[in-house]
Amino acid sequence: MTTNHYYDRDVVSIRDFTRDELEFLFNFTDKISNFSRTERSELGKGRTLGSIYYEPSTRTRMSFEAAISSIGGSSIGITDPKSSSIEKGESLSDTVRIMDLYSDVLVLRHPLDGSGRFASELSTNPVINAGSGSEEHPTQAMLDLYTIYKEKGKIDGLRIGIIGDLKYGRTIYSLVYGLANYNVDIRLISPPTLSIRKESIYGMERKLKIHEYSELPEDILSTLDVIYVTRIQRERFPDIQEYEKVKGTYTIDQTTLDKSKTDVSIMHPLPRLDEISHSIDSTNNATYFRQAANGKEIRAALLALITNEDLV
Amino acid sequence: MTTNHYYDRDVVSIRDFTRDELEFLFNFTDKISNFSRTERSELGKGRTLGSIYYEPSTRTRMSFEAAISSIGGSSIGITDPKSSSIEKGESLSDTVRIMDLYSDVLVLRHPLDGSGRFASELSTNPVINAGSGSEEHPTQAMLDLYTIYKEKGKIDGLRIGIIGDLKYGRTIYSLVYGLANYNVDIRLISPPTLSIRKESIYGMERKLKIHEYSELPEDILSTLDVIYVTRIQRERFPDIQEYEKVKGTYTIDQTTLDKSKTDVSIMHPLPRLDEISHSIDSTNNATYFRQAANGKEIRAALLALITNEDLV
Amino acid sequence: MTTNHYYDRDVVSIRDFTRDELEFLFNFTDKISNFSRTERSELGKGRTLGSIYYEPSTRTRMSFEAAISSIGGSSIGITDPKSSSIEKGESLSDTVRIMDLYSDVLVLRHPLDGSGRFASELSTNPVINAGSGSEEHPTQAMLDLYTIYKEKGKIDGLRIGIIGDLKYGRTIYSLVYGLANYNVDIRLISPPTLSIRKESIYGMERKLKIHEYSELPEDILSTLDVIYVTRIQRERFPDIQEYEKVKGTYTIDQTTLDKSKTDVSIMHPLPRLDEISHSIDSTNNATYFRQAANGKEIRAALLALITNEDLV
Repeated sequence: MTTNHYYDRDVVSIRDFTRDELEFLFNFTDKISNFSRTERSELGKGRTLGSIYYEPSTRTRMSFEAAISSIGGSSIGITDPKSSSIEKGESLSDTVRIMDLYSDVLVLRHPLDGSGRFASELSTNPVINAGSGSEEHPTQAMLDLYTIYKEKGKIDGLRIGIIGDLKYGRTIYSLVYGLANYNVDIRLISPPTLSIRKESIYGMERKLKIHEYSELPEDILSTLDVIYVTRIQRERFPDIQEYEKVKGTYTIDQTTLDKSKTDVSIMHPLPRLDEISHSIDSTNNATYFRQAANGKEIRAALLALITNEDLV
Repeated sequence: MTTNHYYDRDVVSIRDFTRDELEFLFNFTDKISNFSRTERSELGKGRTLGSIYYEPSTRTRMSFEAAISSIGGSSIGITDPKSSSIEKGESLSDTVRIMDLYSDVLVLRHPLDGSGRFASELSTNPVINAGSGSEEHPTQAMLDLYTIYKEKGKIDGLRIGIIGDLKYGRTIYSLVYGLANYNVDIRLISPPTLSIRKESIYGMERKLKIHEYSELPEDILSTLDVIYVTRIQRERFPDIQEYEKVKGTYTIDQTTLDKSKTDVSIMHPLPRLDEISHSIDSTNNATYFRQAANGKEIRAALLALITNEDLV
Repeated sequence: MTTNHYYDRDVVSIRDFTRDELEFLFNFTDKISNFSRTERSELGKGRTLGSIYYEPSTRTRMSFEAAISSIGGSSIGITDPKSSSIEKGESLSDTVRIMDLYSDVLVLRHPLDGSGRFASELSTNPVINAGSGSEEHPTQAMLDLYTIYKEKGKIDGLRIGIIGDLKYGRTIYSLVYGLANYNVDIRLISPPTLSIRKESIYGMERKLKIHEYSELPEDILSTLDVIYVTRIQRERFPDIQEYEKVKGTYTIDQTTLDKSKTDVSIMHPLPRLDEISHSIDSTNNATYFRQAANGKEIRAALLALITNEDLV
């Protein structure tokens, strides 16, 4: 692929991107990561990122702001769902339309499924979905895939464990959709009440090997190349006792590493609570901080490609 | 007018600007709207906009931030009246003086009449009033006049309806003051409890033709060139029932358009609730999104002229 | 000193800096204050400042943002301790590590003593302590010393009164630590319940002449070169009546000036309440606004030196 297929394009779902397109993005990210500060600051010079967060976000928001800043652009936005216009009762469509007028590319986070698509249809500028509803968070999937690709040198042929709350985290669904471009073997580990929603991965089993467990057998653990851990989100539980019961069950610590492949990569979208012990932070297996750093890089690459026609 | 009369100047009231000065601004706005991104980013390079919002604002704030960013500057500010210093009991004068030290141009929104003038007297750098008290919002008036000028090719000779809550909205008063520079015929339509405050437009009737209605007669509707609609602001009503009674009365929809001039321009300062039906958004009469876009452009032009002596 | 000893260095405590290093900073600040806007914007071009405020701040935050902006950089940050990640229970160490990945220099404010040092050990990029616990606020001390140096042409040999709440304000402790590099005579004036904590200035009396008063004798007042006034912080008092009793006692007004040296410099870290009368704002003795302006300048110099190896 020699042309920039990202220019002026919406990023609503990871499912809209082919394997070739994803790998083009990974290679472009590698490339600009080696740019000097000055070279890099030319990529998105003068572009304005307009953000609208209907749900609070720190990690994703900081990462996008650092990304646009690193390529020479700037950012404006509504970062608090209690902002004036939204409080005054303005509709999502008006808020999107106006931000569209003020910026070159939009970033939207919204609790409803389909909100990203809706916004992309209203907006003349490209829209990046920074998390909508329970399934889509495409830039998170991009950075997760990029991290696996960078850490392992490939994605095909890997065995990947995904552990924790698999029901409520949109990160997980986007990751599974992204992995469906590759020949991978997925092992899902969750308490039965938090297992993955079947209807949301309908069709994926044709492309992916997927097995589910409520507890991970040691003979499987010892074969995993990647363990992707997610936070058990207290705010998703109606019952606090139910939360207390499961929160400690799926913890990664030195004992886990001892039973795993020497080079297993432990990943986490962050923020974490106690599902990964701080005691393994300094091991080379701890991939989550490099993963967060990749988040800034992949978003910088994406913003550059989307807003700059001249890039190849 | 060949020199920049805006350089280092306060923008406290629309009444401080002559017709010539306003038209100079309109022409300069037209000019920079055709600039390339790079040309434009030189206009306010390195300038810092310092904002102080004692009342929440999304629309105006985003618009100023996008504007300064588009001309190469950056922005800092207190965007939440519950900010630390204000909560700690710091006086308006100290807050203004300090922000004056940190920035090249100040933007102030404050609930009290006269606060913009007060700030401009304390500050060594120019102050832009982004809404003070119940009468002044000069940059809103500038963008409204610019919108009429752009849509109609002129302002003189037009018949302009202004509809909704005319008592509490400072937008309306600033617009009327601005229109007083032109030969226009104004029709005010509001429920009697929300009619315009006579003392605030004292003297205007010498310059403007003004008629008031509680409901708009169809033979007048059919002659309007512009219908300027305002939100009925729930937060201004002491009594919620009073609000419910009037909120739906002054709604613009396809039926309104059917009875109007083919090229009538529907304007609104936004955000809107249900006073303009979404069903007319795609008509060419719907001017409010173009109007919002003009807000960014006119503020970019204004900030450039105020902070850059070299512009003509 | 001809090399930049600040490059890539943490600023955790004023006690980590020698007199030579401080004066190097003062001279560099003088130098860049005379730079053109364009020259200045090259100093920190493309640098991103990442802020984390676990306590609210307006003054310090605005000052850092204006500083980085004036040297050509940009800023991102968590400015509200109720931000998403912190609310979700993320540890200080994870928050610091992630912000470290997103920015070139970190600014941290945190209520706990030692938090600045802790962050500097975790972070690969330099950390600036913007206030930690009850003792350390090194950039405030730098700007205070720089202000004295600029106003008086020297620091050695001066007699400096410090008045107000000396128990709870970290500003005071950092100032005293910084003054210990000089040959000065310090007079501390506070109500007995708000006197300086002896354990926190342990060892200082070997370097500094320090005397304490609960009320300032006129024959001492008439000999002070600088009066540094601090706010009596209501939020620190468990008992509102105790607050009301002392708040008015230590007020500086024209009567104070009449009894002081003609060229006495009145300083205050701001925001102020009524401990300095607005009636003296226009006297040349009122140094506090120049002091606030110095805050932006010294932070701009510091950020430039820390992030730019090429500066001398």
